Amino acid sequence: MNTIELIRKKRDKESLSKEEIKFLISSYTKNKIPDYQFSSFLMAVFLNGMNSEETSFLTEAMLYSGKVINLDFLKGKKVDKHSTGGVGDKTSLIIAPVAAAAGVYVPMISGRGLGHTGGTLDKLDAIPGFKTNLSLKEYKSVLKKCGAVLVGQTKEIAPADKLIYSLRDVTGTVESIPLITASIMSKKLAEGINGLVLDIKTGSGAFMRKEKDTLLLAESLIRTAKSFGKKVIGFVTDMNQPLGNYIGNWLEVYESVLVLKGESEGDLKELSLALSGAMIFLGGKASSIDEGIKLSQRLIDNGLAYKKFLEIVELQGGDTNFIRNPEKYPKSKIIERIFAPNNGYLETINNFEIGMAALELGAGRLTKDDIIDPKAGIIFKLKIGDFVKKGTEIAELHSSSQLKIEKAKEKIYNSIMLNPNPIKKPKLIKKII
Amino acid sequence: MNTIELIRKKRDKESLSKEEIKFLISSYTKNKIPDYQFSSFLMAVFLNGMNSEETSFLTEAMLYSGKVINLDFLKGKKVDKHSTGGVGDKTSLIIAPVAAAAGVYVPMISGRGLGHTGGTLDKLDAIPGFKTNLSLKEYKSVLKKCGAVLVGQTKEIAPADKLIYSLRDVTGTVESIPLITASIMSKKLAEGINGLVLDIKTGSGAFMRKEKDTLLLAESLIRTAKSFGKKVIGFVTDMNQPLGNYIGNWLEVYESVLVLKGESEGDLKELSLALSGAMIFLGGKASSIDEGIKLSQRLIDNGLAYKKFLEIVELQGGDTNFIRNPEKYPKSKIIERIFAPNNGYLETINNFEIGMAALELGAGRLTKDDIIDPKAGIIFKLKIGDFVKKGTEIAELHSSSQLKIEKAKEKIYNSIMLNPNPIKKPKLIKKII
Repeated sequence: MNTIELIRKKRDKESLSKEEIKFLISSYTKNKIPDYQFSSFLMAVFLNGMNSEETSFLTEAMLYSGKVINLDFLKGKKVDKHSTGGVGDKTSLIIAPVAAAAGVYVPMISGRGLGHTGGTLDKLDAIPGFKTNLSLKEYKSVLKKCGAVLVGQTKEIAPADKLIYSLRDVTGTVESIPLITASIMSKKLAEGINGLVLDIKTGSGAFMRKEKDTLLLAESLIRTAKSFGKKVIGFVTDMNQPLGNYIGNWLEVYESVLVLKGESEGDLKELSLALSGAMIFLGGKASSIDEGIKLSQRLIDNGLAYKKFLEIVELQGGDTNFIRNPEKYPKSKIIERIFAPNNGYLETINNFEIGMAALELGAGRLTKDDIIDPKAGIIFKLKIGDFVKKGTEIAELHSSSQLKIEKAKEKIYNSIMLNPNPIKKPKLIKKII
Repeated sequence: MNTIELIRKKRDKESLSKEEIKFLISSYTKNKIPDYQFSSFLMAVFLNGMNSEETSFLTEAMLYSGKVINLDFLKGKKVDKHSTGGVGDKTSLIIAPVAAAAGVYVPMISGRGLGHTGGTLDKLDAIPGFKTNLSLKEYKSVLKKCGAVLVGQTKEIAPADKLIYSLRDVTGTVESIPLITASIMSKKLAEGINGLVLDIKTGSGAFMRKEKDTLLLAESLIRTAKSFGKKVIGFVTDMNQPLGNYIGNWLEVYESVLVLKGESEGDLKELSLALSGAMIFLGGKASSIDEGIKLSQRLIDNGLAYKKFLEIVELQGGDTNFIRNPEKYPKSKIIERIFAPNNGYLETINNFEIGMAALELGAGRLTKDDIIDPKAGIIFKLKIGDFVKKGTEIAELHSSSQLKIEKAKEKIYNSIMLNPNPIKKPKLIKKII
């Protein structure tokens, strides 16, 4: 097969066969196709798209560029969740223990923060001692012992994705539905799962801001997962404001624990229960999503979900003292509160800017080499539709430097818009597919 | 400026400014943008196009990546011709001496064979001793002495084009009108000319097979040349069959000499006179193209055009003995004639395949490292619309090996189609713009 011919084919809007896509991915992974040819191909895919068959072929080729974990030694269903990423999105920390407490295996491979969004691995790193880089043997052992495991992608899992993602990042080819689909699915399918719950975010804090694009991505992800014989449920959910109130790595661990202990209500809990409910349903431990939600609530009420979380932390080497006594966790040097400048109903939040403000404070990486400050972040106290009086507290900013606080403050002030007239609260779960 | 942002801009169908295009070309030429980013940009340009302003900006940026030759020391107009390439297209060898004999300076920078088409430099190389790699000083001196010079692109001329062309060749981004326009024009404008005649080929032996695409390319080339204040005349001409009857480097020199000596009539002479007529008109030595054509015919009849050709060959170090006594030129080891298998009118020729057959015989390069056999080629005896009887000679094949002859023979047989009904002869000059 000839690489240039295949680039031309995609460029001229023709479909590629399974063998052709396999050739491209396997040759690129083996360094037999140079970056400059592959990036030209990626741009052709970006602009001309891929049909659902091609997307499945691409996913398959990327999946089999590495190891597919076999979890057949565990009796019972294995179910994972994937979120397309957002601001304050910490549901993984809640739903993994809840679903595991219900008897569903949750072999979760997560990523780090990307752009303005946080990453599950960075949050887990905020727990002193917590190891996310387990060997495959340790991964299986933790999963077997407690029913859930939370780790990062190893180099054996979908190496093609790692290479292609780096190239997309620097060639303007990130926001492509077939490329995103194959990237997500090649990693998730490598986990050896039976079912998958997808949380596809839409709005100003999501990667897909427009609901139309989000729905196309959701359909592509679901169709592709199904083409591999997986059971899948997709949620399209609102990301026009932070999920929950805490943004920043330790702050998000803290809020997750509050939900797990039944000490926090609101959007974060609502979405977490829906997702874990769907996981429990796919895992065969409930007869419907609703039954799964009810079971999740019971597992919070009776303390088993929280207990499961402590078990996971302990098995992965984390110090549970800070989970049990969060007041012992070190505090940021500077904690500053900011207040509403006027009266009004909170109409919109530029949630991308809130994410960027958290990054500024130290909660994420502005450049590849930045070191994350696990204590840094924002407690954002308002929700869209809330009425605020001049002087009402908007947020609490946690950081190590006054300069960072000032930068973040400006971003937050610029990102919120008040309206004198009442504003309807947005719907959290927009669609279940 | 940020390369990724500029890739995204073109990807999202936005126009790029002069400064943005200049940044991209100059950074790439200085090796500050990696190939993989530039190829992604090229594919975005290929698929989303460029408007006429962007095309001019691109041409300008590529032009000023190198030296622009100043020919102001020569009193009188400097005019060149560019052909988009075809099979048997040897008009440069005829029109340069004709126009120079009329008093127009012809500072011609040509290229080598590309794909199935021949190149002027390869043809000149067939003349023993002929030097095409002159220094800038020699170039100016030959031009001053005899009014014409025929050389290859030096590394000082449009280096950006050389780099970009190599990358396009291996990334499926060759057939793009703005990229072709900027590639051609950046080189031609560097010659320091006042006027340019364009011969834009259409048909099975051209790079643009469809007349619609050819017209778009013609308009783009003409518009761009005009935007640099150049006088330009564009001819859209037929390339559905070889131009003239001889294909192959020495064979084409030979046929050119026949035309220059007034010993050959037909399509090659017709087109050559039209092109030199237009050059003479643009060079201010005739009041119209028609007058220029008449003058060209006179310069052939009175022997001055042929004399000028001998002068150019001599000044560039070539051995004029072979021009004067072509029977002394070495012959191919094998010369084989092939004959019509049936009666009929010649309906179509797959002219691309004729070009490829000549390459097979040794007249061009199948791989980058092939050495050209200057004697090899085809004398193709038929024109579309001719009636042939079974056994009529179709062509004479010249090569050094029987294997090559057999391969070429098959290509030629497969490329011609006979029809029992009379076929109209195609129009040679389809449009003058």
